[in-house]
Amino acid sequence: MTGTEPTADETPTTRSIPAVAVVDAQTPGNVGTIARAMKNFGFEELLLVDPPELDPDGEAYGFAGHAREDVLPNAQEISFDELVSSYHTIGCTAVTNEGDHNHVRFPFSTPRDLAQRLPTVDADTAIVFGREGVGLTNDELARIDEICSIPASADYPVLNLGQAATITLYELREMTLSPAGTQLPDLERVRASQPLLERLYDQWDELLVEINHPEEKREKTARMIRRVFGRADPTTREVNTFLGVLRRATERPDQEE
Amino acid sequence: MTGTEPTADETPTTRSIPAVAVVDAQTPGNVGTIARAMKNFGFEELLLVDPPELDPDGEAYGFAGHAREDVLPNAQEISFDELVSSYHTIGCTAVTNEGDHNHVRFPFSTPRDLAQRLPTVDADTAIVFGREGVGLTNDELARIDEICSIPASADYPVLNLGQAATITLYELREMTLSPAGTQLPDLERVRASQPLLERLYDQWDELLVEINHPEEKREKTARMIRRVFGRADPTTREVNTFLGVLRRATERPDQEE
Repeated sequence: MTGTEPTADETPTTRSIPAVAVVDAQTPGNVGTIARAMKNFGFEELLLVDPPELDPDGEAYGFAGHAREDVLPNAQEISFDELVSSYHTIGCTAVTNEGDHNHVRFPFSTPRDLAQRLPTVDADTAIVFGREGVGLTNDELARIDEICSIPASADYPVLNLGQAATITLYELREMTLSPAGTQLPDLERVRASQPLLERLYDQWDELLVEINHPEEKREKTARMIRRVFGRADPTTREVNTFLGVLRRATERPDQEE
Repeated sequence: MTGTEPTADETPTTRSIPAVAVVDAQTPGNVGTIARAMKNFGFEELLLVDPPELDPDGEAYGFAGHAREDVLPNAQEISFDELVSSYHTIGCTAVTNEGDHNHVRFPFSTPRDLAQRLPTVDADTAIVFGREGVGLTNDELARIDEICSIPASADYPVLNLGQAATITLYELREMTLSPAGTQLPDLERVRASQPLLERLYDQWDELLVEINHPEEKREKTARMIRRVFGRADPTTREVNTFLGVLRRATERPDQEE
Protein backbone atom coordinates (compact mmCIF):
# COMPACT_ATOMS: atom_id res chain seq x y z
CA MET A 1 0.00 0.00 0.00
CA THR A 2 1.30 3.43 -0.83
CA GLY A 3 1.13 6.50 1.35
CA THR A 4 -1.48 8.11 -0.86
CA GLU A 5 -4.16 5.53 -0.10
CA PRO A 6 -5.83 6.62 3.13
CA THR A 7 -7.25 3.86 5.30
CA ALA A 8 -10.63 4.24 6.98
CA ASP A 9 -8.86 5.69 10.02
CA GLU A 10 -6.89 8.34 8.19
CA THR A 11 -8.21 11.61 6.90
CA PRO A 12 -7.06 12.15 3.33
CA THR A 13 -4.27 14.70 3.05
CA THR A 14 -5.27 18.14 1.88
CA ARG A 15 -4.04 18.95 -1.58
CA SER A 16 -0.84 20.83 -1.04
CA ILE A 17 -0.46 24.37 -2.36
CA PRO A 18 2.95 25.00 -3.93
CA ALA A 19 5.44 27.24 -2.17
CA VAL A 20 7.03 30.11 -4.08
CA ALA A 21 10.81 30.48 -3.84
CA VAL A 22 12.85 33.47 -4.96
CA VAL A 23 16.60 33.00 -5.36
CA ASP A 24 18.94 35.93 -4.81
CA ALA A 25 16.48 38.72 -5.63
CA GLN A 26 18.30 42.06 -5.84
CA THR A 27 15.36 44.45 -5.52
CA PRO A 28 13.09 44.44 -2.46
CA GLY A 29 10.27 45.82 -4.66
CA ASN A 30 10.21 42.62 -6.70
CA VAL A 31 9.88 40.50 -3.56
CA GLY A 32 6.91 42.68 -2.59
CA THR A 33 5.35 42.35 -6.04
CA ILE A 34 5.67 38.56 -5.86
CA ALA A 35 4.13 38.53 -2.36
CA ARG A 36 1.20 40.57 -3.67
CA ALA A 37 0.65 38.22 -6.62
CA MET A 38 0.75 35.29 -4.16
CA LYS A 39 -2.00 36.85 -2.10
CA ASN A 40 -4.01 37.76 -5.22
CA PHE A 41 -3.96 34.13 -6.32
CA GLY A 42 -4.17 32.34 -2.97
CA PHE A 43 -0.56 31.25 -2.34
CA GLU A 44 0.89 31.51 1.18
CA GLU A 45 4.36 30.06 1.56
CA LEU A 46 7.17 32.37 0.41
CA LEU A 47 10.74 31.04 0.58
CA LEU A 48 13.67 33.41 0.11
CA VAL A 49 17.19 32.33 -0.80
CA ASP A 50 19.77 35.09 -0.15
CA PRO A 51 17.13 37.83 -0.04
CA PRO A 52 17.85 41.55 0.00
CA GLU A 53 17.03 43.31 3.25
CA LEU A 54 13.26 43.69 3.61
CA ASP A 55 12.75 46.87 5.56
CA PRO A 56 9.16 47.17 6.86
CA ASP A 57 9.24 50.79 5.71
CA GLY A 58 10.86 49.99 2.38
CA GLU A 59 9.87 48.96 -1.14
CA ALA A 60 9.13 45.30 -0.44
CA TYR A 61 6.33 46.21 1.94
CA GLY A 62 5.36 49.15 -0.27
CA PHE A 63 4.75 46.88 -3.27
CA ALA A 64 3.13 44.02 -1.34
CA GLY A 65 -0.38 45.49 -0.93
CA HIS A 66 -2.31 43.41 1.61
CA ALA A 67 0.38 40.71 1.45
CA ARG A 68 2.32 42.95 3.83
CA GLU A 69 0.03 41.54 6.53
CA ASP A 70 0.84 37.85 6.10
CA VAL A 71 2.72 36.49 3.08
CA LEU A 72 5.65 38.88 3.39
CA PRO A 73 6.22 38.87 7.17
CA ASN A 74 5.79 35.06 7.19
CA ALA A 75 8.42 34.55 4.46
CA GLN A 76 11.13 32.08 5.44
CA GLU A 77 14.78 32.39 4.59
CA ILE A 78 16.15 29.11 3.28
CA SER A 79 19.36 27.94 1.65
CA PHE A 80 19.39 26.72 -1.94
CA ASP A 81 20.58 23.31 -0.71
CA GLU A 82 17.65 23.06 1.67
CA LEU A 83 15.23 24.20 -1.02
CA VAL A 84 16.20 21.54 -3.55
CA SER A 85 16.38 18.79 -0.92
CA SER A 86 13.00 19.55 0.72
CA TYR A 87 10.80 20.38 -2.27
CA HIS A 88 10.06 19.15 -5.74
CA THR A 89 11.40 22.24 -7.50
CA ILE A 90 10.14 23.81 -10.72
CA GLY A 91 12.49 26.47 -12.06
CA CYS A 92 11.15 29.28 -14.24
CA THR A 93 13.29 30.61 -17.06
CA ALA A 94 12.70 32.63 -20.22
CA VAL A 95 15.41 30.76 -22.07
CA THR A 96 14.96 27.09 -22.88
CA ASN A 97 17.08 24.80 -24.95
CA GLU A 98 15.83 24.06 -28.43
CA GLY A 99 15.86 20.32 -28.11
CA ASP A 100 17.15 17.33 -26.23
CA HIS A 101 20.85 17.86 -26.87
CA ASN A 102 21.09 19.33 -23.36
CA HIS A 103 19.16 18.47 -20.20
CA VAL A 104 19.56 21.72 -18.31
CA ARG A 105 16.73 23.66 -19.96
CA PHE A 106 14.84 20.98 -21.86
CA PRO A 107 12.22 19.48 -21.80
CA PHE A 108 10.17 22.29 -20.29
CA SER A 109 6.52 22.96 -19.44
CA THR A 110 4.52 26.16 -19.79
CA PRO A 111 2.64 27.54 -16.76
CA ARG A 112 -0.59 26.33 -18.35
CA ASP A 113 0.82 22.79 -18.65
CA LEU A 114 1.69 22.90 -14.96
CA ALA A 115 -1.80 24.17 -14.14
CA GLN A 116 -3.16 21.01 -15.69
CA ARG A 117 -0.72 18.56 -14.16
CA LEU A 118 0.17 19.85 -10.68
CA PRO A 119 -3.35 19.78 -9.20
CA THR A 120 -3.31 16.01 -9.72
CA VAL A 121 -0.12 15.58 -7.67
CA ASP A 122 -0.01 15.57 -3.88
CA ALA A 123 3.52 16.57 -2.88
CA ASP A 124 5.61 19.45 -1.57
CA THR A 125 6.34 21.57 -4.59
CA ALA A 126 8.11 24.91 -4.92
CA ILE A 127 7.96 27.21 -7.94
CA VAL A 128 11.41 28.80 -8.15
CA PHE A 129 12.23 32.20 -9.64
CA GLY A 130 15.74 33.56 -10.13
CA ARG A 131 17.38 36.92 -9.71
CA GLU A 132 16.60 39.90 -11.93
CA GLY A 133 18.65 40.12 -15.09
CA VAL A 134 20.09 36.64 -15.41
CA GLY A 135 17.37 34.55 -13.75
CA LEU A 136 18.39 31.11 -12.51
CA THR A 137 21.91 30.07 -13.49
CA ASN A 138 22.67 26.84 -15.31
CA ASP A 139 24.25 25.53 -12.11
CA GLU A 140 21.05 26.21 -10.21
CA LEU A 141 18.77 24.84 -12.93
CA ALA A 142 20.88 21.68 -13.02
CA ARG A 143 19.82 20.95 -9.43
CA ILE A 144 16.14 21.74 -10.02
CA ASP A 145 13.63 19.02 -10.86
CA GLU A 146 11.84 20.53 -13.83
CA ILE A 147 11.74 23.61 -16.02
CA CYS A 148 8.92 26.02 -16.76
CA SER A 149 8.91 28.78 -19.37
CA ILE A 150 6.34 31.46 -20.22
CA PRO A 151 5.65 31.82 -23.95
CA ALA A 152 6.48 35.39 -24.99
CA SER A 153 7.74 37.35 -27.97
CA ALA A 154 10.79 35.83 -29.65
CA ASP A 155 12.07 39.41 -29.99
CA TYR A 156 12.00 40.04 -26.26
CA PRO A 157 10.99 37.02 -24.17
CA VAL A 158 12.64 38.16 -20.93
CA LEU A 159 9.97 39.22 -18.45
CA ASN A 160 10.61 41.26 -15.37
CA LEU A 161 10.89 38.98 -12.30
CA GLY A 162 7.69 40.25 -10.67
CA GLN A 163 5.75 40.00 -13.93
CA ALA A 164 6.93 36.43 -14.59
CA ALA A 165 5.87 35.35 -11.11
CA THR A 166 2.52 37.10 -11.50
CA ILE A 167 1.70 35.23 -14.72
CA THR A 168 2.83 31.89 -13.35
CA LEU A 169 0.78 32.22 -10.15
CA TYR A 170 -2.22 33.47 -12.15
CA GLU A 171 -2.06 30.31 -14.26
CA LEU A 172 -1.78 28.12 -11.15
CA ARG A 173 -4.67 29.85 -9.33
CA GLU A 174 -6.96 26.87 -9.72
CA MET A 175 -4.72 24.94 -7.32
CA THR A 176 -5.51 27.41 -4.55
CA LEU A 177 -8.87 29.02 -5.31
CA SER A 178 -11.94 26.86 -5.49
CA PRO A 179 -14.28 27.78 -8.37
CA ALA A 180 -16.26 29.81 -5.85
CA GLY A 181 -13.03 31.26 -4.44
CA THR A 182 -12.57 34.15 -6.88
CA GLN A 183 -14.13 37.58 -6.56
CA LEU A 184 -16.14 37.06 -9.73
CA PRO A 185 -19.73 35.85 -9.67
CA ASP A 186 -20.12 32.31 -11.01
CA LEU A 187 -21.83 33.59 -14.11
CA GLU A 188 -20.20 36.16 -16.31
CA ARG A 189 -23.50 37.00 -17.91
CA VAL A 190 -27.13 35.97 -17.64
CA ARG A 191 -28.95 35.94 -20.95
CA ALA A 192 -32.56 37.09 -20.87
CA SER A 193 -35.14 34.35 -21.39
CA GLN A 194 -36.02 33.47 -24.96
CA PRO A 195 -39.70 34.58 -24.59
CA LEU A 196 -38.48 38.00 -23.45
CA LEU A 197 -36.05 38.17 -26.38
CA GLU A 198 -38.89 37.26 -28.76
CA ARG A 199 -40.90 40.15 -27.33
CA LEU A 200 -37.93 42.36 -28.11
CA TYR A 201 -37.79 41.17 -31.72
CA ASP A 202 -41.59 41.69 -32.04
CA GLN A 203 -41.18 45.22 -30.74
CA TRP A 204 -38.48 45.90 -33.33
CA ASP A 205 -40.87 44.57 -36.02
CA GLU A 206 -43.55 46.95 -34.82
CA LEU A 207 -41.13 49.85 -34.98
CA LEU A 208 -40.10 48.95 -38.53
CA VAL A 209 -43.75 49.01 -39.58
CA GLU A 210 -44.47 52.23 -37.73
CA ILE A 211 -41.56 54.11 -39.30
CA ASN A 212 -42.38 52.73 -42.76
CA HIS A 213 -39.12 50.89 -43.15
CA PRO A 214 -39.33 49.61 -46.78
CA GLU A 215 -41.45 46.47 -46.76
CA GLU A 216 -39.09 44.46 -48.96
CA LYS A 217 -36.24 45.08 -46.52
CA ARG A 218 -38.06 44.27 -43.29
CA GLU A 219 -37.31 40.57 -43.18
CA LYS A 220 -33.59 41.10 -43.77
CA THR A 221 -33.42 43.88 -41.23
CA ALA A 222 -35.28 41.81 -38.64
CA ARG A 223 -32.82 38.97 -39.18
CA MET A 224 -29.87 41.35 -38.73
CA ILE A 225 -31.38 42.64 -35.48
CA ARG A 226 -31.77 39.07 -34.23
CA ARG A 227 -28.15 38.32 -35.09
CA VAL A 228 -26.78 41.36 -33.25
CA PHE A 229 -28.76 40.74 -30.06
CA GLY A 230 -28.15 37.03 -30.35
CA ARG A 231 -24.39 37.52 -30.20
CA ALA A 232 -24.56 40.04 -27.36
CA ASP A 233 -26.29 37.73 -24.86
CA PRO A 234 -28.29 40.66 -23.41
CA THR A 235 -29.45 40.47 -19.82
CA THR A 236 -33.08 40.74 -18.71
CA ARG A 237 -32.51 44.29 -17.60
CA GLU A 238 -30.88 45.24 -20.88
CA VAL A 239 -33.74 43.75 -22.91
CA ASN A 240 -36.35 45.46 -20.72
CA THR A 241 -34.61 48.78 -21.25
CA PHE A 242 -34.60 48.25 -25.01
CA LEU A 243 -38.27 47.21 -24.90
CA GLY A 244 -39.19 50.45 -23.13
CA VAL A 245 -37.24 52.58 -25.58
CA LEU A 246 -38.58 50.83 -28.67
CA ARG A 247 -42.17 50.91 -27.42
CA ARG A 248 -41.80 54.61 -26.85
CA ALA A 249 -40.26 55.13 -30.29
CA THR A 250 -43.10 53.16 -31.87
CA GLU A 251 -46.01 54.67 -29.92
CA ARG A 252 -44.60 58.18 -29.31
CA PRO A 253 -46.79 58.86 -26.24
CA ASP A 254 -45.07 62.26 -26.02
CA GLN A 255 -46.81 63.31 -29.24
CA GLU A 256 -50.35 62.56 -27.96
CA GLU A 257 -52.57 65.58 -27.43
CA MET B 1 -20.79 42.30 -50.29
CA THR B 2 -19.29 43.29 -46.97
CA GLY B 3 -16.01 45.05 -46.41
CA THR B 4 -14.43 41.95 -44.98
CA GLU B 5 -14.59 40.00 -48.24
CA PRO B 6 -11.57 41.02 -50.28
CA THR B 7 -11.93 40.89 -54.07
CA ALA B 8 -9.16 39.47 -56.17
CA ASP B 9 -7.67 42.96 -56.42
CA GLU B 10 -7.65 43.76 -52.72
CA THR B 11 -5.17 42.50 -50.22
CA PRO B 12 -6.93 41.28 -47.10
CA THR B 13 -6.66 43.69 -44.18
CA THR B 14 -4.12 42.77 -41.56
CA ARG B 15 -5.68 41.65 -38.32
CA SER B 16 -5.51 44.65 -36.06
CA ILE B 17 -3.56 44.44 -32.82
CA PRO B 18 -5.31 46.12 -29.87
CA ALA B 19 -3.91 49.33 -28.44
CA VAL B 20 -3.27 49.59 -24.71
CA ALA B 21 -4.59 52.67 -22.92
CA VAL B 22 -3.69 53.78 -19.39
CA VAL B 23 -5.92 56.36 -17.75
CA ASP B 24 -4.46 58.74 -15.17
CA ALA B 25 -1.57 56.56 -14.01
CA GLN B 26 0.08 58.08 -10.96
CA THR B 27 3.39 56.20 -10.97
CA PRO B 28 5.79 56.40 -13.93
CA GLY B 29 7.13 52.94 -12.94
CA ASN B 30 3.76 51.34 -13.71
CA VAL B 31 3.70 52.91 -17.17
CA GLY B 32 7.15 51.41 -17.73
CA THR B 33 6.03 47.99 -16.49
CA ILE B 34 3.05 48.06 -18.86
CA ALA B 35 5.30 49.09 -21.77
CA ARG B 36 7.60 46.16 -20.98
CA ALA B 37 4.69 43.68 -20.86
CA MET B 38 3.50 45.09 -24.22
CA LYS B 39 6.87 44.40 -25.79
CA ASN B 40 7.07 40.95 -24.15
CA PHE B 41 3.74 39.99 -25.73
CA GLY B 42 3.96 41.81 -29.07
CA PHE B 43 1.81 44.93 -28.52
CA GLU B 44 2.95 48.27 -29.91
CA GLU B 45 0.43 51.09 -29.50
CA LEU B 46 0.44 52.69 -26.04
CA LEU B 47 -2.13 55.46 -25.37
CA LEU B 48 -1.82 57.60 -22.26
CA VAL B 49 -4.66 59.67 -20.77
CA ASP B 50 -3.38 62.27 -18.28
CA PRO B 51 -0.03 60.51 -17.78
CA PRO B 52 2.55 61.40 -15.16
CA GLU B 53 5.72 62.95 -16.48
CA LEU B 54 7.88 60.30 -18.16
CA ASP B 55 11.44 61.40 -17.61
CA PRO B 56 13.87 59.48 -19.88
CA ASP B 57 16.12 59.11 -16.83
CA GLY B 58 13.27 58.16 -14.48
CA GLU B 59 11.32 55.08 -13.37
CA ALA B 60 9.13 54.68 -16.46
CA TYR B 61 12.17 54.11 -18.64
CA GLY B 62 13.88 52.21 -15.83
CA PHE B 63 11.04 49.65 -15.65
CA ALA B 64 10.44 49.39 -19.40
CA GLY B 65 13.31 47.06 -20.33
CA HIS B 66 13.73 47.01 -24.11
CA ALA B 67 10.38 48.78 -24.50
CA ARG B 68 12.31 51.95 -23.71
CA GLU B 69 13.48 51.79 -27.33
CA ASP B 70 10.08 51.85 -29.03
CA VAL B 71 6.81 51.29 -27.14
CA LEU B 72 7.47 53.93 -24.50
CA PRO B 73 8.94 56.76 -26.64
CA ASN B 74 6.19 56.12 -29.24
CA ALA B 75 3.39 56.39 -26.64
CA GLN B 76 0.71 58.91 -27.61
CA GLU B 77 -1.07 61.21 -25.23
CA ILE B 78 -4.83 61.16 -25.85
CA SER B 79 -7.92 62.54 -24.11
CA PHE B 80 -10.48 60.17 -22.60
CA ASP B 81 -13.10 61.59 -25.02
CA GLU B 82 -10.89 60.83 -27.99
CA LEU B 83 -10.13 57.35 -26.65
CA VAL B 84 -13.76 56.28 -26.31
CA SER B 85 -14.79 57.86 -29.62
CA SER B 86 -11.94 56.38 -31.70
CA TYR B 87 -11.66 52.87 -30.28
CA HIS B 88 -13.84 49.99 -29.20
CA THR B 89 -12.84 50.13 -25.55
CA ILE B 90 -12.53 47.25 -23.10
CA GLY B 91 -12.15 48.43 -19.51
CA CYS B 92 -10.35 46.24 -16.98
CA THR B 93 -11.57 46.21 -13.39
CA ALA B 94 -11.16 43.92 -10.38
CA VAL B 95 -14.67 44.69 -9.20
CA THR B 96 -17.66 43.55 -11.19
CA ASN B 97 -21.32 43.70 -10.37
CA GLU B 98 -22.91 40.47 -9.19
CA GLY B 99 -25.65 40.39 -11.77
CA ASP B 100 -27.67 42.30 -14.29
CA HIS B 101 -29.23 44.83 -11.90
CA ASN B 102 -26.63 47.34 -13.06
CA HIS B 103 -24.98 47.78 -16.47
CA VAL B 104 -21.82 49.55 -15.40
CA ARG B 105 -19.78 46.48 -14.39
CA PHE B 106 -21.85 43.60 -15.75
CA PRO B 107 -21.80 41.53 -17.92
CA PHE B 108 -18.04 41.11 -18.03
CA SER B 109 -15.50 38.90 -19.78
CA THR B 110 -12.29 37.37 -18.45
CA PRO B 111 -9.02 37.95 -20.33
CA ARG B 112 -9.22 34.36 -21.55
CA ASP B 113 -12.71 34.98 -22.96
CA LEU B 114 -11.34 37.99 -24.82
CA ALA B 115 -8.44 35.93 -26.11
CA GLN B 116 -10.95 33.63 -27.73
CA ARG B 117 -13.26 36.30 -29.17
CA LEU B 118 -11.09 39.28 -30.14
CA PRO B 119 -8.90 37.50 -32.70
CA THR B 120 -12.04 36.93 -34.76
CA VAL B 121 -12.89 40.65 -34.86
CA ASP B 122 -11.23 43.12 -37.22
CA ALA B 123 -11.58 46.55 -35.62
CA ASP B 124 -9.71 49.23 -33.68
CA THR B 125 -9.77 48.04 -30.09
CA ALA B 126 -8.14 49.45 -26.97
CA ILE B 127 -7.67 47.60 -23.69
CA VAL B 128 -8.08 50.27 -21.00
CA PHE B 129 -6.50 50.22 -17.53
CA GLY B 130 -7.27 52.70 -14.77
CA ARG B 131 -5.20 54.51 -12.19
CA GLU B 132 -3.55 52.76 -9.23
CA GLY B 133 -5.74 52.37 -6.18
CA VAL B 134 -9.22 52.98 -7.54
CA GLY B 135 -8.86 51.78 -11.14
CA LEU B 136 -11.42 53.07 -13.62
CA THR B 137 -14.24 55.07 -12.08
CA ASN B 138 -17.91 54.25 -12.64
CA ASP B 139 -18.18 57.40 -14.78
CA GLU B 140 -15.35 56.18 -16.98
CA LEU B 141 -16.61 52.60 -17.15
CA ALA B 142 -20.04 53.91 -18.14
CA ARG B 143 -18.50 55.29 -21.34
CA ILE B 144 -16.51 52.17 -22.13
CA ASP B 145 -17.86 49.48 -24.47
CA GLU B 146 -17.23 46.34 -22.44
CA ILE B 147 -15.81 45.13 -19.16
CA CYS B 148 -12.99 42.67 -18.45
CA SER B 149 -12.04 41.23 -15.08
CA ILE B 150 -9.20 38.92 -14.00
CA PRO B 151 -10.31 36.06 -11.74
CA ALA B 152 -8.38 36.34 -8.45
CA SER B 153 -8.79 35.58 -4.77
CA ALA B 154 -12.10 36.75 -3.29
CA ASP B 155 -10.05 37.80 -0.24
CA TYR B 156 -7.87 40.16 -2.21
CA PRO B 157 -8.79 40.46 -5.89
CA VAL B 158 -7.18 43.87 -6.49
CA LEU B 159 -4.06 43.46 -8.57
CA ASN B 160 -1.37 46.05 -8.94
CA LEU B 161 -1.86 48.04 -12.18
CA GLY B 162 1.28 46.70 -13.85
CA GLN B 163 0.47 43.13 -12.83
CA ALA B 164 -3.11 43.34 -14.14
CA ALA B 165 -1.89 44.64 -17.49
CA THR B 166 0.79 41.94 -17.65
CA ILE B 167 -1.74 39.13 -17.18
CA THR B 168 -4.21 40.61 -19.65
CA LEU B 169 -1.57 41.07 -22.37
CA TYR B 170 -0.17 37.59 -21.65
CA GLU B 171 -3.64 36.12 -22.27
CA LEU B 172 -4.03 38.13 -25.50
CA ARG B 173 -0.57 37.20 -26.86
CA GLU B 174 -2.03 34.95 -29.52
CA MET B 175 -3.44 38.05 -31.25
CA THR B 176 0.07 39.38 -31.78
CA LEU B 177 2.47 36.44 -31.79
CA SER B 178 2.11 33.76 -34.43
CA PRO B 179 2.56 30.21 -33.09
CA ALA B 180 6.15 30.44 -34.30
CA GLY B 181 6.49 33.95 -32.83
CA THR B 182 7.36 32.99 -29.25
CA GLN B 183 10.85 32.27 -28.00
CA LEU B 184 9.92 28.68 -27.25
CA PRO B 185 10.62 25.85 -29.64
CA ASP B 186 7.48 24.38 -31.22
CA LEU B 187 7.86 21.22 -29.23
CA GLU B 188 8.13 21.26 -25.49
CA ARG B 189 9.52 17.77 -25.43
CA VAL B 190 10.50 15.06 -27.88
CA ARG B 191 9.85 11.57 -26.62
CA ALA B 192 12.40 8.93 -27.55
CA SER B 193 11.26 6.36 -30.11
CA GLN B 194 9.38 3.34 -28.80
CA PRO B 195 12.06 0.85 -29.98
CA LEU B 196 14.65 2.82 -27.99
CA LEU B 197 12.36 2.83 -24.95
CA GLU B 198 11.90 -0.94 -25.28
CA ARG B 199 15.67 -1.32 -25.25
CA LEU B 200 15.66 0.68 -22.03
CA TYR B 201 13.08 -1.63 -20.44
CA ASP B 202 15.06 -4.69 -21.61
CA GLN B 203 18.16 -3.24 -20.01
CA TRP B 204 16.30 -2.75 -16.73
CA ASP B 205 15.14 -6.38 -16.94
CA GLU B 206 18.75 -7.47 -17.40
CA LEU B 207 19.78 -5.47 -14.38
CA LEU B 208 17.03 -6.99 -12.25
CA VAL B 209 18.29 -10.47 -13.18
CA GLU B 210 21.91 -9.55 -12.64
CA ILE B 211 21.31 -8.15 -9.15
CA ASN B 212 19.08 -11.10 -8.19
CA HIS B 213 16.00 -9.00 -7.64
CA PRO B 214 13.48 -11.56 -6.25
CA GLU B 215 12.05 -13.43 -9.22
CA GLU B 216 8.46 -13.20 -8.04
CA LYS B 217 8.69 -9.40 -7.93
CA ARG B 218 10.37 -8.83 -11.27
CA GLU B 219 7.25 -8.52 -13.37
CA LYS B 220 5.68 -5.97 -11.01
CA THR B 221 8.88 -3.98 -10.77
CA ALA B 222 9.30 -3.97 -14.53
CA ARG B 223 5.77 -2.67 -14.89
CA MET B 224 6.43 0.09 -12.37
CA ILE B 225 9.57 1.09 -14.28
CA ARG B 226 7.57 1.27 -17.49
CA ARG B 227 4.94 3.47 -15.83
CA VAL B 228 7.47 5.95 -14.45
CA PHE B 229 9.34 6.37 -17.73
CA GLY B 230 6.08 6.35 -19.65
CA ARG B 231 4.82 9.38 -17.76
CA ALA B 232 8.09 11.26 -18.02
CA ASP B 233 8.24 11.30 -21.84
CA PRO B 234 12.03 10.93 -21.79
CA THR B 235 14.04 12.28 -24.70
CA THR B 236 16.39 10.21 -26.84
CA ARG B 237 19.35 11.68 -25.05
CA GLU B 238 17.89 10.93 -21.66
CA VAL B 239 17.15 7.31 -22.59
CA ASN B 240 20.63 6.84 -24.04
CA THR B 241 22.15 8.14 -20.83
CA PHE B 242 20.05 5.71 -18.78
CA LEU B 243 20.97 2.88 -21.15
CA GLY B 244 24.66 3.59 -20.64
CA VAL B 245 24.33 3.72 -16.87
CA LEU B 246 22.20 0.58 -16.63
CA ARG B 247 24.45 -1.37 -18.95
CA ARG B 248 27.41 -0.39 -16.81
CA ALA B 249 25.55 -1.34 -13.62
CA THR B 250 24.65 -4.71 -15.13
CA GLU B 251 27.98 -5.59 -16.70
CA ARG B 252 30.33 -3.81 -14.24
CA PRO B 253 33.22 -3.47 -16.73
CA ASP B 254 35.12 -1.72 -13.94
CA GLN B 255 35.26 -4.99 -11.98
CA GLU B 256 36.86 -6.98 -14.83
CA GLU B 257 40.43 -8.11 -14.25
